[in-house]
Amino acid sequence: MIQAKGYAAQDAQTDLAPWNFEHREVGPHDVQIEISYCGVCHSDLHQIKNDWFPGIFPMVPGHEIVGKIVKVGEHVKKFSPGELAGVGCMVDSCQVCENCKDGLEQYCLEGNTQTYNNNDRSGVPTYGGYSNTIVVREEFVLHISEKLALAATAPLLCAGITTYSPLRHWKVGKGHKLAVLGLGGLGHMGVKFGVAFGAEVTVLSTSPAKEEAAKALGAHHFVVTSDPAQLEAVKGSFDFILDTVSAVHDMDMYISLLRTNGTHICVGVPSEAYAIQPFSLLGGRKSVAGSGIGGIAETQEMLDFCAEHDIVSDVEVIDIKDITASYERMLKGDVRYRFVIDMATL
Amino acid sequence: MIQAKGYAAQDAQTDLAPWNFEHREVGPHDVQIEISYCGVCHSDLHQIKNDWFPGIFPMVPGHEIVGKIVKVGEHVKKFSPGELAGVGCMVDSCQVCENCKDGLEQYCLEGNTQTYNNNDRSGVPTYGGYSNTIVVREEFVLHISEKLALAATAPLLCAGITTYSPLRHWKVGKGHKLAVLGLGGLGHMGVKFGVAFGAEVTVLSTSPAKEEAAKALGAHHFVVTSDPAQLEAVKGSFDFILDTVSAVHDMDMYISLLRTNGTHICVGVPSEAYAIQPFSLLGGRKSVAGSGIGGIAETQEMLDFCAEHDIVSDVEVIDIKDITASYERMLKGDVRYRFVIDMATL
Repeated sequence: MIQAKGYAAQDAQTDLAPWNFEHREVGPHDVQIEISYCGVCHSDLHQIKNDWFPGIFPMVPGHEIVGKIVKVGEHVKKFSPGELAGVGCMVDSCQVCENCKDGLEQYCLEGNTQTYNNNDRSGVPTYGGYSNTIVVREEFVLHISEKLALAATAPLLCAGITTYSPLRHWKVGKGHKLAVLGLGGLGHMGVKFGVAFGAEVTVLSTSPAKEEAAKALGAHHFVVTSDPAQLEAVKGSFDFILDTVSAVHDMDMYISLLRTNGTHICVGVPSEAYAIQPFSLLGGRKSVAGSGIGGIAETQEMLDFCAEHDIVSDVEVIDIKDITASYERMLKGDVRYRFVIDMATL
Repeated sequence: MIQAKGYAAQDAQTDLAPWNFEHREVGPHDVQIEISYCGVCHSDLHQIKNDWFPGIFPMVPGHEIVGKIVKVGEHVKKFSPGELAGVGCMVDSCQVCENCKDGLEQYCLEGNTQTYNNNDRSGVPTYGGYSNTIVVREEFVLHISEKLALAATAPLLCAGITTYSPLRHWKVGKGHKLAVLGLGGLGHMGVKFGVAFGAEVTVLSTSPAKEEAAKALGAHHFVVTSDPAQLEAVKGSFDFILDTVSAVHDMDMYISLLRTNGTHICVGVPSEAYAIQPFSLLGGRKSVAGSGIGGIAETQEMLDFCAEHDIVSDVEVIDIKDITASYERMLKGDVRYRFVIDMATL
């Protein structure tokens, strides 16, 4: 077994703290990565607190992982030691179902194996990226370009692909008006991708203070949603809303901002059900859709797109001992836009 | 003014009863129809009871209207006295907005004028088809084929187009598995159209007793949703669900029956918000959409399609004095599948 160290929650009531654990040996199809940085996703906090479902403890969170390959199995063809590599939200899937064959491993019909807070296909708990090393089968490892700032690349593995994938799936681009709801880790990537794809991008925010930051990210417009006049002015105007908010929010109000045939795409995960009035949908043949991360091939496509277009996440690099304080700041929206743990501080 | 008689609700607490009222004179672009039959839509009951919003009283319901043209205005080109004609849920719209120009008068950006329980564009209340005559501008009058049984054609004007339009919009047909939820006035038309378009159609019902009737309508499969084993067998299997239910129901359960990228299309209007768990959508890039009736050109297309394929509604013709008793039977699902008022009984 490979000895690993990281930060774990021992249960849903306890803060993260140092913990030693083990990974499997590097198998013939495995890649071992020495983790350099790991992004801090809001879902890490949801999961260690059992917000969504009872978790598997001890839990080592983290699914925005970048680092250097230190070992590869004998049958590994695509990766070599010394290369940069990344791991996102999944480390395995059945590989044979219809969805896996279509490159939609995230929707694997047998369920994909999540990078942490999951049991792998042999029943062993998975441990994530708040740690010094990870062992992952080749098919779920991503190439990371040397051209990009490595720490700022980590959030692409979740926040990046989670916003890139639906914008590509719904073919959002030139001629479309896209609203991005929520300007956090996901939202700021949604703005960058929306702009890169040629859409006219509006950031919707409750906070007037975020206007400058939104424009700096490339957003063309900014709407303060607490101002009825500003809201009225954009009613029925958007082709798409990319909803990155993981707190409960007024869906009907946002849907009213869509034009006929518009689509409200949810990528955040509030802990309560969405409440949607039937007439909000029927009144303009509107849709509310959900999208979860992206497939492996699409994640690589996204990383290559980012390398080509010099797109990374805006990050604040932190010491791992500050993780609990960072969660508190994240909950207050006090981060532009993603905390990334420097694993050298472990 | 044209003297008219019909059945009206004087307020939301009172049963329908005979009432005399007036329509405008036939203007240069108007068509006057002597009403032969009017379908009884669940939304008639919702509206006279103020289930959705405060209504305009006295209210003469009815928006599934067929009859004979008795008079046309001097500029009317498409219609002549003596021809059969129909009127659906709308009698006017702005005619100049983007949606009206696209043939989506139902989504008129200024709001369409509903056939009843609405004020027309000059501020006069509209009165519907539970009456002997109606005056409608030419653009909102439909041609009805002599080939079809007239009484059974009435429900096509609402139940027909409400199911035809979304199936066409989402291109439901060969190679698709379509589930129809709710086997009432809308649902039974959804089955007929789904089958006519080449889809593999499954009726989802809480009542095992409806299996034979569903199959008689052309459905290929029948699933009793109260049977966990039957439900489990169709999980993740449908490309589309056409949801015609206007009572509150468990959306997450039905969404779980959709395959990846599946769409749940709502055409019923429950009086409470839909509750949808985020993971129900995110877990398979699924969508919940709404669709409201159809445009005028599409309604004519649907009527022509029905004439060509000999499709009508299954109806039970009633005497107008039995309307309140019919509502009670409708609420119990005791109608196959649409009551139609014979206006000769007025």
